[in-house]
Amino acid sequence: MDQRGYRVAIVGASGEVGRNMIETLDRYPIPVSSLRLLASKRSAGKVYSFRNSNVVIEELTENSFDDIDLAFFSAGGSVSLKYAPIAVSKGAVVIDNTSAFRMDPEIPLVVPEVNAHILSKETRLIANPNCSTIQLVVALKPLRDRYGIESVNVSTYQAISGAGAKALYEYDAELTDENHLPQILPTRSDEIYYKIAHNVIPQIDVFMESGYTKEEIKMINETQKILNDDGIKVNATCVRVPVRYGHSISTTVKLKSPVSTRMEIIDLFEQCEDVVLRDDISHQTYPMPLYLQHRDEVFVGRIRKDLFEEQVIHFWIVADNILKGAALNSVQIAYYMHQNGLLGD
Amino acid sequence: MDQRGYRVAIVGASGEVGRNMIETLDRYPIPVSSLRLLASKRSAGKVYSFRNSNVVIEELTENSFDDIDLAFFSAGGSVSLKYAPIAVSKGAVVIDNTSAFRMDPEIPLVVPEVNAHILSKETRLIANPNCSTIQLVVALKPLRDRYGIESVNVSTYQAISGAGAKALYEYDAELTDENHLPQILPTRSDEIYYKIAHNVIPQIDVFMESGYTKEEIKMINETQKILNDDGIKVNATCVRVPVRYGHSISTTVKLKSPVSTRMEIIDLFEQCEDVVLRDDISHQTYPMPLYLQHRDEVFVGRIRKDLFEEQVIHFWIVADNILKGAALNSVQIAYYMHQNGLLGD
Repeated sequence: MDQRGYRVAIVGASGEVGRNMIETLDRYPIPVSSLRLLASKRSAGKVYSFRNSNVVIEELTENSFDDIDLAFFSAGGSVSLKYAPIAVSKGAVVIDNTSAFRMDPEIPLVVPEVNAHILSKETRLIANPNCSTIQLVVALKPLRDRYGIESVNVSTYQAISGAGAKALYEYDAELTDENHLPQILPTRSDEIYYKIAHNVIPQIDVFMESGYTKEEIKMINETQKILNDDGIKVNATCVRVPVRYGHSISTTVKLKSPVSTRMEIIDLFEQCEDVVLRDDISHQTYPMPLYLQHRDEVFVGRIRKDLFEEQVIHFWIVADNILKGAALNSVQIAYYMHQNGLLGD
Repeated sequence: MDQRGYRVAIVGASGEVGRNMIETLDRYPIPVSSLRLLASKRSAGKVYSFRNSNVVIEELTENSFDDIDLAFFSAGGSVSLKYAPIAVSKGAVVIDNTSAFRMDPEIPLVVPEVNAHILSKETRLIANPNCSTIQLVVALKPLRDRYGIESVNVSTYQAISGAGAKALYEYDAELTDENHLPQILPTRSDEIYYKIAHNVIPQIDVFMESGYTKEEIKMINETQKILNDDGIKVNATCVRVPVRYGHSISTTVKLKSPVSTRMEIIDLFEQCEDVVLRDDISHQTYPMPLYLQHRDEVFVGRIRKDLFEEQVIHFWIVADNILKGAALNSVQIAYYMHQNGLLGD
């Protein structure tokens, strides 16, 4: 860094997450002396505004990371695999939003509210978890700290923006033209495409032999890694729904000790600074994605004690998948490192 | 009945379910000598086609059930509470699609594939279960018969048509006019309304003090009653999604004995006549509501063995909520009774 702040690069700047990284970094109190926006040749030349300046996207090359202190990556796993090590070798700290390094035991997988303490001055590469996992572990943390967690079972209601800007265009096209042929969802890299308008699709990412999708396995493995407890049994069913922004998660947790009342859990979440409680059944208050898009926080509601098992509770989590699920969490990792003197020389 | 068949009445004939009862009865091999369509004064005079005749809706009165052998009710709980006993007293067998009598211990709650055996020649009033419950218990039955069931945990993705035709109009209005103010969903009888387009709403029916909604409690209680086992622990999280027809259910079942492989469950469902297996991950085959609307069957897919617990499995159920979830199941109850000589004198 120079006297005025960090020299920052954003790789994948023209994508849905990249653009939100620019906006989030813009409003976060992280000193930035220069911003380099990087993308494929196709996006080079596009102009974005950052702190009252215009920044032109440059084509990503091996020389893009000369004089960079901090690089955010969100351009797909293969780009990260190739260029993140180059950025690190040139002295940058890399915060990677792809799945490329998440399960590497050497690489910290970080949600600042949960496990920022594993970051150190030696950390050069940090993985940003899967969008659904982030909001889940933020809500699990106060429960883990208070009761311990035996198992977690979730069904997700995931927004279309999680599949990128093109999936959002596809949704709009389907809404206006019922003969529009889908070409993106459920997952670009698979072979068959289905409509998302007026539909729900129980497939996100490709299938594994076990019958689970990769997205589901990510939620399972990453939750265990972030909570640093491979004894926690996790299950996920990941489903795409016709919502633009905001993932919702129907969550069942078996705690290690019993809960006496529903109010006990409501109080716990109310006192937790890292979640926003939206649970007032007398006023039909609960979190919903349409009404919470473009918000930073993780919202929790629909809290219930299981009717049969005293250690089991159920609740509902909503967060913006592009912000807390991706861009914001990455910037928050950088902000934590900045505040704690872990960035720069 | 007379020589040509049963004298049938449909109460609530102009509603979403009522119109589907007319169409379903039309194509089912149940002899009908006369059809009386009944509704509120507002709908009287409307004309529907049935087996090449036109039938005019009459206003429902206490005299509507003279000379009726079989009456289907789907006009709301208060209408059933008032008129179903009148119909029974005049000699009709009543199949009621509302929640009015479902939890009455004297009244059979029937999904023919699961518990038609409780019907007898003395049965005069039969309750048709909640839409989500029906498709759930059809899929649970082969598991119960083979392994026994300890617990069931579901998260639903319920279609808008479950809230009636007006909710469908509201959805269309929201899609074309983003300033349209909702007045129906989540539930007409509650006080605050939310948009369903581009949203998911984790409330169906009103709230109970426990934090559960009535819809969730219905699924819990009715599942136990139909499976005739109040030892089965059931949990439900019921969510409305922007889908017109077809409820989807993400289902976790803890069996009483272990499952060795995912294929064991796939084979079981494949051999079960009452469900249609749609589970081929190599071809991205799984049930989705948009592609299965207006179908009679209950579809099952996304079958997985839990990664940690050998008695736990997960799967995904889709069925048309207006057909198998309501109109069709009612007609199937009548058809079973007809075939087994339980209807008429």
